[in-house]
Amino acid sequence: MIAIDAFHPELDLLLERVVSTPRRLVWRAWTEPDLLMKWFCPPPWSVVSCEVDLQPGGGFATVMRSPEGIEVAGAGCYLLIEPEERLVWTSALTGGFRPHAQPTSDTDFVFTADLSFAEEDDGTRYRAHLMHATAKARKRHEDMGFNEGWGTAFDQLVDVMAGEA
Amino acid sequence: MIAIDAFHPELDLLLERVVSTPRRLVWRAWTEPDLLMKWFCPPPWSVVSCEVDLQPGGGFATVMRSPEGIEVAGAGCYLLIEPEERLVWTSALTGGFRPHAQPTSDTDFVFTADLSFAEEDDGTRYRAHLMHATAKARKRHEDMGFNEGWGTAFDQLVDVMAGEA
Repeated sequence: MIAIDAFHPELDLLLERVVSTPRRLVWRAWTEPDLLMKWFCPPPWSVVSCEVDLQPGGGFATVMRSPEGIEVAGAGCYLLIEPEERLVWTSALTGGFRPHAQPTSDTDFVFTADLSFAEEDDGTRYRAHLMHATAKARKRHEDMGFNEGWGTAFDQLVDVMAGEA
Repeated sequence: MIAIDAFHPELDLLLERVVSTPRRLVWRAWTEPDLLMKWFCPPPWSVVSCEVDLQPGGGFATVMRSPEGIEVAGAGCYLLIEPEERLVWTSALTGGFRPHAQPTSDTDFVFTADLSFAEEDDGTRYRAHLMHATAKARKRHEDMGFNEGWGTAFDQLVDVMAGEA
Protein backbone atom coordinates (compact mmCIF):
# COMPACT_ATOMS: atom_id res chain seq x y z
CA MET A 1 0.00 0.00 0.00
CA ILE A 2 1.50 3.27 -1.10
CA ALA A 3 1.96 5.91 1.59
CA ILE A 4 0.08 9.16 1.06
CA ASP A 5 0.12 11.82 3.69
CA ALA A 6 -3.02 12.58 5.73
CA PHE A 7 -4.77 15.94 5.62
CA HIS A 8 -2.98 18.56 7.71
CA PRO A 9 -5.25 21.61 8.09
CA GLU A 10 -2.34 23.99 8.67
CA LEU A 11 -0.52 22.88 5.51
CA ASP A 12 -3.20 21.70 3.13
CA LEU A 13 -6.14 22.88 1.05
CA LEU A 14 -9.20 20.89 0.14
CA LEU A 15 -11.83 21.17 -2.52
CA GLU A 16 -14.63 18.64 -2.29
CA ARG A 17 -17.63 18.38 -4.59
CA VAL A 18 -20.39 15.89 -5.26
CA VAL A 19 -21.60 16.04 -8.85
CA SER A 20 -23.86 13.98 -11.07
CA THR A 21 -21.06 13.39 -13.60
CA PRO A 22 -20.24 9.67 -13.67
CA ARG A 23 -16.86 8.85 -12.16
CA ARG A 24 -15.44 7.38 -15.35
CA LEU A 25 -16.04 10.71 -17.09
CA VAL A 26 -14.43 12.74 -14.30
CA TRP A 27 -11.42 10.44 -14.59
CA ARG A 28 -11.27 10.82 -18.37
CA ALA A 29 -11.48 14.61 -18.02
CA TRP A 30 -8.41 14.55 -15.74
CA THR A 31 -6.35 12.15 -17.84
CA GLU A 32 -7.10 12.73 -21.54
CA PRO A 33 -5.28 15.78 -22.91
CA ASP A 34 -7.99 16.72 -25.44
CA LEU A 35 -10.58 16.83 -22.65
CA LEU A 36 -8.28 18.42 -20.07
CA MET A 37 -7.59 21.36 -22.40
CA LYS A 38 -11.31 22.17 -22.44
CA TRP A 39 -11.74 22.72 -18.70
CA PHE A 40 -8.39 23.00 -16.87
CA CYS A 41 -7.99 26.76 -17.04
CA PRO A 42 -10.55 29.46 -16.19
CA PRO A 43 -11.32 31.91 -19.01
CA PRO A 44 -10.22 34.25 -20.44
CA TRP A 45 -7.02 32.14 -20.33
CA SER A 46 -6.99 28.97 -22.39
CA VAL A 47 -4.90 25.81 -22.49
CA VAL A 48 -3.03 25.69 -25.78
CA SER A 49 -1.10 22.47 -25.22
CA CYS A 50 -1.30 19.57 -22.84
CA GLU A 51 0.81 16.44 -22.43
CA VAL A 52 -0.14 13.54 -20.17
CA ASP A 53 2.16 10.55 -19.64
CA LEU A 54 -0.05 8.58 -17.30
CA GLN A 55 2.37 6.40 -15.32
CA PRO A 56 4.36 6.89 -12.12
CA GLY A 57 7.23 9.15 -13.11
CA GLY A 58 5.39 10.30 -16.24
CA GLY A 59 5.18 13.99 -17.01
CA PHE A 60 2.15 16.30 -16.97
CA ALA A 61 2.73 19.49 -18.94
CA THR A 62 0.43 22.35 -19.90
CA VAL A 63 0.77 25.69 -21.59
CA MET A 64 -1.83 28.34 -20.79
CA ARG A 65 -2.27 31.48 -22.88
CA SER A 66 -3.80 34.82 -21.93
CA PRO A 67 -5.96 36.84 -24.33
CA GLU A 68 -2.88 39.07 -24.85
CA GLY A 69 -0.83 36.04 -25.88
CA ILE A 70 1.21 35.63 -22.71
CA GLU A 71 2.04 31.97 -22.25
CA VAL A 72 2.65 30.24 -18.94
CA ALA A 73 3.98 26.69 -18.83
CA GLY A 74 3.07 24.32 -16.05
CA ALA A 75 4.73 21.00 -15.33
CA GLY A 76 4.38 18.14 -12.93
CA CYS A 77 5.02 14.46 -12.43
CA TYR A 78 2.56 11.64 -11.80
CA LEU A 79 3.32 9.68 -8.65
CA LEU A 80 0.38 7.33 -8.19
CA ILE A 81 -2.34 6.21 -10.56
CA GLU A 82 -5.29 4.07 -9.49
CA PRO A 83 -7.58 4.19 -12.52
CA GLU A 84 -10.87 6.02 -11.84
CA GLU A 85 -10.06 6.17 -8.09
CA ARG A 86 -6.96 8.15 -7.34
CA LEU A 87 -4.46 10.36 -9.11
CA VAL A 88 -1.49 11.83 -7.28
CA TRP A 89 0.87 14.28 -8.97
CA THR A 90 3.29 16.93 -7.85
CA SER A 91 4.64 20.22 -9.17
CA ALA A 92 7.90 19.54 -7.29
CA LEU A 93 9.03 17.14 -10.03
CA THR A 94 8.70 16.86 -13.78
CA GLY A 95 8.66 13.83 -16.06
CA GLY A 96 11.16 11.11 -15.16
CA PHE A 97 11.05 12.14 -11.46
CA ARG A 98 13.43 15.02 -12.25
CA PRO A 99 13.25 18.02 -9.88
CA HIS A 100 11.27 20.88 -11.36
CA ALA A 101 13.04 24.20 -11.91
CA GLN A 102 10.62 26.61 -10.31
CA PRO A 103 9.84 29.58 -12.55
CA THR A 104 10.72 32.12 -9.85
CA SER A 105 13.04 32.04 -6.87
CA ASP A 106 9.97 31.53 -4.69
CA THR A 107 10.36 28.06 -3.26
CA ASP A 108 6.98 28.07 -1.65
CA PHE A 109 4.54 27.53 -4.42
CA VAL A 110 5.00 23.84 -4.82
CA PHE A 111 2.28 21.31 -4.12
CA THR A 112 1.33 17.69 -4.39
CA ALA A 113 -2.25 17.05 -5.49
CA ASP A 114 -3.95 13.93 -4.17
CA LEU A 115 -7.12 13.64 -6.23
CA SER A 116 -9.70 11.05 -5.32
CA PHE A 117 -12.86 10.02 -7.10
CA ALA A 118 -15.60 8.00 -5.37
CA GLU A 119 -18.89 6.81 -6.78
CA GLU A 120 -21.81 8.39 -4.93
CA ASP A 121 -25.40 7.69 -5.97
CA ASP A 122 -25.16 7.93 -9.76
CA GLY A 123 -22.45 10.55 -9.62
CA THR A 124 -19.05 11.29 -8.17
CA ARG A 125 -17.55 12.64 -4.98
CA TYR A 126 -14.45 14.53 -6.09
CA ARG A 127 -11.82 15.40 -3.54
CA ALA A 128 -8.76 17.51 -4.35
CA HIS A 129 -6.33 17.47 -1.44
CA LEU A 130 -3.42 19.84 -2.01
CA MET A 131 -0.35 19.32 0.16
CA HIS A 132 2.23 22.04 0.79
CA ALA A 133 5.55 22.08 2.61
CA THR A 134 4.71 25.02 4.88
CA ALA A 135 1.80 27.04 6.29
CA LYS A 136 3.13 30.02 4.31
CA ALA A 137 2.85 28.08 1.06
CA ARG A 138 -0.67 26.98 1.93
CA LYS A 139 -1.65 30.59 2.65
CA ARG A 140 -0.09 31.82 -0.55
CA HIS A 141 -1.96 29.23 -2.62
CA GLU A 142 -5.20 30.11 -0.83
CA ASP A 143 -4.63 33.84 -1.39
CA MET A 144 -3.92 33.20 -5.08
CA GLY A 145 -7.47 31.93 -5.27
CA PHE A 146 -7.19 28.16 -4.95
CA ASN A 147 -10.85 27.66 -4.09
CA GLU A 148 -12.17 29.87 -6.86
CA GLY A 149 -9.63 28.67 -9.41
CA TRP A 150 -9.96 24.94 -8.81
CA GLY A 151 -13.70 25.33 -8.17
CA THR A 152 -14.34 27.20 -11.43
CA ALA A 153 -12.19 24.73 -13.35
CA PHE A 154 -14.13 21.82 -11.89
CA ASP A 155 -17.44 23.50 -12.84
CA GLN A 156 -16.06 23.64 -16.37
CA LEU A 157 -15.13 19.97 -16.20
CA VAL A 158 -18.73 19.12 -15.30
CA ASP A 159 -20.04 21.23 -18.19
CA VAL A 160 -17.60 19.77 -20.70
CA MET A 161 -18.31 16.20 -19.65
CA ALA A 162 -22.07 16.74 -19.84
CA GLY A 163 -21.44 16.83 -23.59
CA GLU A 164 -19.55 13.51 -23.46
CA ALA A 165 -22.12 11.54 -21.43
CA MET B 1 7.16 0.31 -16.85
CA ILE B 2 7.86 3.32 -14.69
CA ALA B 3 9.34 6.34 -16.42
CA ILE B 4 12.76 7.44 -15.18
CA ASP B 5 14.62 10.19 -16.92
CA ALA B 6 17.75 9.42 -18.95
CA PHE B 7 21.16 10.80 -18.04
CA HIS B 8 21.57 14.43 -19.09
CA PRO B 9 25.25 15.41 -18.82
CA GLU B 10 24.46 19.09 -18.37
CA LEU B 11 22.03 18.48 -15.52
CA ASP B 12 23.19 15.28 -13.86
CA LEU B 13 26.01 13.76 -11.83
CA LEU B 14 27.12 10.17 -11.85
CA LEU B 15 29.09 7.99 -9.50
CA GLU B 16 29.77 4.48 -10.73
CA ARG B 17 31.75 1.81 -8.92
CA VAL B 18 32.32 -1.90 -9.28
CA VAL B 19 32.99 -3.57 -5.94
CA SER B 20 33.27 -7.11 -4.65
CA THR B 21 30.47 -6.57 -2.13
CA PRO B 22 27.53 -8.83 -3.07
CA ARG B 23 24.56 -6.96 -4.43
CA ARG B 24 22.20 -8.09 -1.66
CA LEU B 25 24.53 -6.49 0.89
CA VAL B 26 24.79 -3.20 -0.99
CA TRP B 27 20.99 -3.16 -1.09
CA ARG B 28 20.72 -3.88 2.62
CA ALA B 29 23.21 -1.11 3.39
CA TRP B 30 21.01 1.37 1.50
CA THR B 31 17.72 0.25 3.02
CA GLU B 32 18.28 -0.85 6.63
CA PRO B 33 18.57 2.11 9.00
CA ASP B 34 21.01 0.43 11.40
CA LEU B 35 23.40 -0.25 8.52
CA LEU B 36 22.82 3.05 6.77
CA MET B 37 23.84 4.96 9.89
CA LYS B 38 27.25 3.32 9.78
CA TRP B 39 28.31 4.55 6.34
CA PHE B 40 26.02 7.30 5.01
CA CYS B 41 27.97 10.28 6.31
CA PRO B 42 31.72 10.96 6.02
CA PRO B 43 33.54 11.46 9.34
CA PRO B 44 33.95 13.45 11.50
CA TRP B 45 30.17 13.88 11.08
CA SER B 46 28.00 10.97 12.12
CA VAL B 47 24.42 9.88 11.53
CA VAL B 48 22.55 9.96 14.84
CA SER B 49 19.13 8.93 13.57
CA CYS B 50 17.74 7.35 10.43
CA GLU B 51 14.24 6.43 9.35
CA VAL B 52 13.44 4.38 6.27
CA ASP B 53 9.87 3.72 5.13
CA LEU B 54 10.65 1.60 2.10
CA GLN B 55 7.63 2.03 -0.16
CA PRO B 56 6.68 4.54 -2.87
CA GLY B 57 5.69 7.67 -0.94
CA GLY B 58 7.53 6.47 2.15
CA GLY B 59 9.84 8.87 3.94
CA PHE B 60 13.63 8.73 4.26
CA ALA B 61 14.93 10.88 7.11
CA THR B 62 18.37 11.30 8.61
CA VAL B 63 19.97 13.51 11.24
CA MET B 64 23.71 14.11 10.96
CA ARG B 65 25.77 15.55 13.79
CA SER B 66 29.10 17.36 13.72
CA PRO B 67 31.79 16.85 16.37
CA GLU B 68 30.65 20.21 17.83
CA GLY B 69 27.10 18.93 18.14
CA ILE B 70 25.56 20.79 15.21
CA GLU B 71 22.72 18.72 13.80
CA VAL B 72 21.52 18.77 10.22
CA ALA B 73 18.33 16.98 9.24
CA GLY B 74 17.89 15.48 5.80
CA ALA B 75 14.64 14.25 4.34
CA GLY B 76 13.44 12.62 1.19
CA CYS B 77 10.75 10.43 -0.30
CA TYR B 78 11.03 7.05 -1.97
CA LEU B 79 9.56 6.97 -5.47
CA LEU B 80 10.47 3.59 -6.89
CA ILE B 81 11.68 0.40 -5.24
CA GLU B 82 12.81 -2.66 -7.17
CA PRO B 83 14.39 -4.84 -4.49
CA GLU B 84 18.15 -5.29 -4.94
CA GLU B 85 17.99 -3.61 -8.37
CA ARG B 86 16.83 -0.04 -8.20
CA LEU B 87 16.03 2.60 -5.62
CA VAL B 88 14.78 6.03 -6.63
CA TRP B 89 14.25 8.78 -4.07
CA THR B 90 14.06 12.55 -4.13
CA SER B 91 14.87 15.39 -1.77
CA ALA B 92 12.08 17.43 -3.43
CA LEU B 93 9.46 15.54 -1.41
CA THR B 94 9.16 14.04 2.06
CA GLY B 95 7.10 11.14 3.35
CA GLY B 96 3.58 10.92 1.95
CA PHE B 97 4.69 12.65 -1.28
CA ARG B 98 4.49 16.02 0.56
CA PRO B 99 6.69 18.81 -0.85
CA HIS B 100 9.85 19.29 1.18
CA ALA B 101 10.41 22.66 2.84
CA GLN B 102 13.95 23.43 1.78
CA PRO B 103 16.14 24.53 4.68
CA THR B 104 17.26 27.72 2.92
CA SER B 105 15.66 29.90 0.29
CA ASP B 106 17.99 28.33 -2.25
CA THR B 107 15.75 26.37 -4.55
CA ASP B 108 18.60 24.81 -6.41
CA PHE B 109 19.90 22.11 -4.18
CA VAL B 110 17.22 19.56 -4.83
CA PHE B 111 17.93 16.25 -6.52
CA THR B 112 16.43 12.91 -7.40
CA ALA B 113 18.74 9.93 -6.89
CA ASP B 114 18.31 6.98 -9.24
CA LEU B 115 20.42 4.23 -7.68
CA SER B 116 20.95 1.01 -9.56
CA PHE B 117 22.64 -2.18 -8.50
CA ALA B 118 23.73 -4.83 -10.99
CA GLU B 119 25.47 -8.12 -10.32
CA GLU B 120 28.91 -8.22 -11.91
CA ASP B 121 31.20 -11.21 -11.50
CA ASP B 122 30.76 -11.97 -7.80
CA GLY B 123 30.24 -8.36 -6.88
CA THR B 124 28.17 -5.32 -7.73
CA ARG B 125 28.13 -2.50 -10.21
CA TYR B 126 26.74 0.48 -8.29
CA ARG B 127 25.45 3.46 -10.19
CA ALA B 128 24.25 6.64 -8.51
CA HIS B 129 22.61 8.95 -11.04
CA LEU B 130 21.70 12.30 -9.51
CA MET B 131 19.18 14.40 -11.42
CA HIS B 132 18.89 18.16 -10.97
CA ALA B 133 16.49 20.73 -12.35
CA THR B 134 19.15 23.06 -13.75
CA ALA B 135 22.82 23.19 -14.79
CA LYS B 136 23.36 25.62 -11.92
CA ALA B 137 22.08 23.08 -9.41
CA ARG B 138 24.26 20.38 -10.92
CA LYS B 139 27.31 22.66 -10.68
CA ARG B 140 26.53 23.58 -7.11
CA HIS B 141 26.20 19.94 -6.08
CA GLU B 142 29.48 19.13 -7.85
CA ASP B 143 31.24 22.07 -6.18
CA MET B 144 29.93 20.95 -2.79
CA GLY B 145 31.92 17.79 -3.34
CA PHE B 146 29.44 15.29 -4.70
CA ASN B 147 32.10 12.93 -6.04
CA GLU B 148 34.21 12.95 -2.88
CA GLY B 149 31.22 12.88 -0.55
CA TRP B 150 29.26 10.11 -2.23
CA GLY B 151 32.50 8.30 -3.09
CA THR B 152 33.81 8.34 0.48
CA ALA B 153 30.43 7.28 1.79
CA PHE B 154 30.32 4.37 -0.63
CA ASP B 155 33.84 3.32 0.41
CA GLN B 156 32.50 3.25 3.96
CA LEU B 157 29.53 1.14 2.84
CA VAL B 158 31.94 -1.40 1.36
CA ASP B 159 33.97 -1.48 4.60
CA VAL B 160 30.90 -1.80 6.81
CA MET B 161 29.38 -4.57 4.72
CA ALA B 162 32.65 -6.50 4.68
CA GLY B 163 31.83 -7.13 8.32
CA GLU B 164 28.34 -8.41 7.41
CA ALA B 165 29.36 -10.82 4.67
